[in-house]
Amino acid sequence: MLENISSPEDLKALDPGKYQELAEEIRQFLLEKVSEHGGHLASNLGVVELTMALHLALDLPEDKIVWDVGHQSYTHKLLSGRRDGFDSLREYGGLSGFPKRKESEYDCFDTGHSSTSISAGLGLVEARDRLGESYTVVSVIGDGALSGGMAYEALNNASRLTSNFIIVLNDNNMSISESTGGFSKYLSGIRLGSGYNNLKRDVRRGLSKVPGVGESLVENISQAKMALKQMVLVPGMLFENLDITYVGPIDGYNIPQMVRIFEEAKRIDRPVLIHVKTKKGKGYGPAERNPSRYHGVTPFDVETGEGNKKPSAPGYTDAFSHALCKLAKEDEKIVAVTAAMPEGTGLKRFSSLYPKRFFDVGIAEEHAVTFAAGMAAGGLKPVVAVYSTFLQRAYDQMIHDVCLQKLPVVFAIDRAGLVGSDGETHHGMFDLSYLCSMPGMTVFAPKNKYELRDGLKFGLSCGKPFAIRYPRGTAWAGLKEHKTPLELGKSEVVCQGKDIALLAVGSMVETGFEVYKELKKRRIDATLINVRFVKPMDTELFMTLTKTHRLFVTMEENVETGGFGERVAGWICQQSLKTRLIRAAIPDTFVEQGDVALLKKNLWLDVESVVERIVKCWKEEKG
Amino acid sequence: MLENISSPEDLKALDPGKYQELAEEIRQFLLEKVSEHGGHLASNLGVVELTMALHLALDLPEDKIVWDVGHQSYTHKLLSGRRDGFDSLREYGGLSGFPKRKESEYDCFDTGHSSTSISAGLGLVEARDRLGESYTVVSVIGDGALSGGMAYEALNNASRLTSNFIIVLNDNNMSISESTGGFSKYLSGIRLGSGYNNLKRDVRRGLSKVPGVGESLVENISQAKMALKQMVLVPGMLFENLDITYVGPIDGYNIPQMVRIFEEAKRIDRPVLIHVKTKKGKGYGPAERNPSRYHGVTPFDVETGEGNKKPSAPGYTDAFSHALCKLAKEDEKIVAVTAAMPEGTGLKRFSSLYPKRFFDVGIAEEHAVTFAAGMAAGGLKPVVAVYSTFLQRAYDQMIHDVCLQKLPVVFAIDRAGLVGSDGETHHGMFDLSYLCSMPGMTVFAPKNKYELRDGLKFGLSCGKPFAIRYPRGTAWAGLKEHKTPLELGKSEVVCQGKDIALLAVGSMVETGFEVYKELKKRRIDATLINVRFVKPMDTELFMTLTKTHRLFVTMEENVETGGFGERVAGWICQQSLKTRLIRAAIPDTFVEQGDVALLKKNLWLDVESVVERIVKCWKEEKG
Repeated sequence: MLENISSPEDLKALDPGKYQELAEEIRQFLLEKVSEHGGHLASNLGVVELTMALHLALDLPEDKIVWDVGHQSYTHKLLSGRRDGFDSLREYGGLSGFPKRKESEYDCFDTGHSSTSISAGLGLVEARDRLGESYTVVSVIGDGALSGGMAYEALNNASRLTSNFIIVLNDNNMSISESTGGFSKYLSGIRLGSGYNNLKRDVRRGLSKVPGVGESLVENISQAKMALKQMVLVPGMLFENLDITYVGPIDGYNIPQMVRIFEEAKRIDRPVLIHVKTKKGKGYGPAERNPSRYHGVTPFDVETGEGNKKPSAPGYTDAFSHALCKLAKEDEKIVAVTAAMPEGTGLKRFSSLYPKRFFDVGIAEEHAVTFAAGMAAGGLKPVVAVYSTFLQRAYDQMIHDVCLQKLPVVFAIDRAGLVGSDGETHHGMFDLSYLCSMPGMTVFAPKNKYELRDGLKFGLSCGKPFAIRYPRGTAWAGLKEHKTPLELGKSEVVCQGKDIALLAVGSMVETGFEVYKELKKRRIDATLINVRFVKPMDTELFMTLTKTHRLFVTMEENVETGGFGERVAGWICQQSLKTRLIRAAIPDTFVEQGDVALLKKNLWLDVESVVERIVKCWKEEKG
Repeated sequence: MLENISSPEDLKALDPGKYQELAEEIRQFLLEKVSEHGGHLASNLGVVELTMALHLALDLPEDKIVWDVGHQSYTHKLLSGRRDGFDSLREYGGLSGFPKRKESEYDCFDTGHSSTSISAGLGLVEARDRLGESYTVVSVIGDGALSGGMAYEALNNASRLTSNFIIVLNDNNMSISESTGGFSKYLSGIRLGSGYNNLKRDVRRGLSKVPGVGESLVENISQAKMALKQMVLVPGMLFENLDITYVGPIDGYNIPQMVRIFEEAKRIDRPVLIHVKTKKGKGYGPAERNPSRYHGVTPFDVETGEGNKKPSAPGYTDAFSHALCKLAKEDEKIVAVTAAMPEGTGLKRFSSLYPKRFFDVGIAEEHAVTFAAGMAAGGLKPVVAVYSTFLQRAYDQMIHDVCLQKLPVVFAIDRAGLVGSDGETHHGMFDLSYLCSMPGMTVFAPKNKYELRDGLKFGLSCGKPFAIRYPRGTAWAGLKEHKTPLELGKSEVVCQGKDIALLAVGSMVETGFEVYKELKKRRIDATLINVRFVKPMDTELFMTLTKTHRLFVTMEENVETGGFGERVAGWICQQSLKTRLIRAAIPDTFVEQGDVALLKKNLWLDVESVVERIVKCWKEEKG
């Protein structure tokens, strides 16, 4: 049946009696494709019926759906003519795992980070009204994404709207990990509120039928202005307080009911929040039982739910996880903060060992950083563990609340550099630039897993703002014997040569070591430096190197603009040196999804490309 | 009386009958000092009694007050031994207009930007509990600051707290401008709710006395779990939903009542929100009538309320304001967004002329940017007018929601560069660095007010993400005759020479022109370039210049790390040029408050310093 559906029109032509069968086919298709290619699973299985209902009730692509975060858009892609794309899901040049305007006219706004959909949707609504158009705008947001402050800013602004805007709250009682905080508890209250309809009826009856008390109540309620509305719409109180019509909670697996409600909602001249209850992993036992584990997956066996690939060597996340727990054992002042990513950042273990010293603040990076600054001001040693790309959310808080007061907050920045199949929105390729521009920030990048451990220890004892950044994937164990004790702002000489200095940052030390060996084969005498401290820079060592080294090569997984290489260029110019410089960095462009090795090759960051550039330049220099 | 109060102990020793008299003395003192030095007035006049009550109820400095934004902390400073400092209020080396840990042990956390206080306070609370201490933590936050998403993130997280934390909502029904959005309306509902106590009593009576209906209500309410609590605490519903005890609204001018409530609140083992009603400008007629006008002031006459200084020439804000209104008249697709700063950003005029095309989203920069991205995706031409330092809040949104989709959002960035007496937290000295690292962002800085107008027009028609940055203060009208038509990525040759190239950005073109003239006097032949486009850079012109110019001098009001000069250094190294480079920029450090001319001199950004560096370098180069 699925193969006959290439557009919402095809879906609308289907007999409603077949909806459930189609939903099952879609689930099987998703399971098959995601188990083969990897990708986001649990969230997509949860919204099959919700997506179908939206496609049925709306008039796509004229109407617009903004998918918050966007990793739950697979069914949407499938039903809008992109079925074949799933054979290249999240691969280089293939179908994106997130909505992409350039991929399809059915995608109206790109997402990837959380909590943006209501803001973007509200923008589309204003554009529609101003330009005299009449399409419907729907933002689909999860309960987890609602813990992000900008979603609240947007709800607050949606209040004043006097035209239609539909917000679908996809409530699966769980963001990526479990939702935290008061708002989540508030939603739990609604979920439990089976008495809602009866209460509403009884309050009405109470007001009209009981003369004495009823009248007095009415009078006082009208004095208190908002009370009446609150009493008849108890479950949606927060939303009604914000002047947003609340409908729900409704069953996210009852397609006809959802279609009816969406169609009704389209006719209301104000913002409407429709609270839909769904279940992550719906229909696939292992994912229903353990949605966190099946949030984002690598290829796995559908029957057993087990991974197909041999478990890879421990990653940097593991190395961080173990190092932190060990340090925390010795120092009770160490506390840890995550923004809804205890598994991804490796804090799960810490949270089990030290539950009272662990804080999952929800998808709220801004709060996470300032909260950590507060704890540091109060005498603790907070570690904020976060992905590079998500820390972008807290750029101002790092400057304003941490660096300005020189507070000892440690930022453990995971997924720094290229991340692979999550693509444009997820590469951690700006952190060296934004961190280095912050006065007083120390920026450290370990060459291998041992140095990550040592760097973390150093950071926790240095008493300053300290950022340690490391990449996604297997933790390198090479160059283990090189363990020059850490000293603030001092780089490490890994291999001493005399002509060319390879200044490699973090993950690029591994590449640099290969480059060094390749150059050696070509009888080019290079020095390999493990930069370690990107800020402050070891200009003393660099100056010594310039005595014999006529070419510097900086190597980093970061955009060249504002990155380490540019800092070195600034220093070379400042010192009026004649040293030549090659900067191996990510060019000033967004990077698509794909295998990291392939992306590095495309960006001239692989061993071969770097060697090629060096050899060419060295010939010129010598010739 | 005031001269005898140098600490909270002195205040506590005072006869309560004298409180009101002291409050009046404080008001007179503040009026006198602020009218003389300039500063924040209305917000400080509003919280005199509230601050006194906090000093009376708390045990400072052991207890901690975190002042949100911090511009309302004058009375706090005055009562904690800093009376004499007011003679140098906001001057270079003088008393800061914001809380500063380095200034006094009574200041426990630095602020300046909005909506951080609950996060920081919560951090202090966790540190207190973990370290076994017992001080009280109070965060004082205005209703305007509550429109910022991170305050919501923090409230959401405060919910789970099982120890004391006091949040004082200083509700003056107005942030810097008027509060906007649903939350503000919600607070209005509370303010009007005089029937609260009666309602509460009547609901109770209703429940107990009327058998049939009452029982049924009780039953259903208990089924709906949260309803009962909501019914007896109607005004604080939102806060109770979040599991934060709500007290209020209470009168912000009744000191004994406030003291009693604060003392009671200290004993509650959970977060307590105390809703205090105050009035901006309290006690000074002109400020009460027009609090926006008296939010931040330059010296003025207390009698008349009129400014003492001759009104200065129109500023860049004015130039922007007029240019935008003119362009908007011709193009109905132009819309404008501000984050609670219609006056400061110059959008007030636009909002009067085009109310339906104007959006004040509250102190919500994150939403502002993504909302604008949504409008751009929907076909409009949004202009986000914002201060450089506050745009830091939306760093991620600029990358993720604007640049990634190449959406035509124009950022009109005011207060770029040094701002003067607001100091560390307010200088707009990072924007060139963070903007340049964003792929696809165009970064433009006009040399004078005419170019601002032309640049804005260019930006609105270029169809890409476009940032135009200009400084605080008088708009330069010099070099009016130089009006090379704008072309993307092309700089302008202002004065053609042959030895030294002055590459000046925005406000530094004025300085550069003076430098040029000084060099001419010394028979040094310089070329003056108005860079205009910091990104993309005019490397073609720069290459031509290198043919005869042996020294490049970059000039910018931005940190050197990641700034324009560093970009030029990167390019020089990339091209293997022998061109020498001097970078005049703000060094890698935070900059204190003070007169902008003085700060520039300290930072070697004034004419004399730049000339001195050039002459020294040129002698070396020639010799």
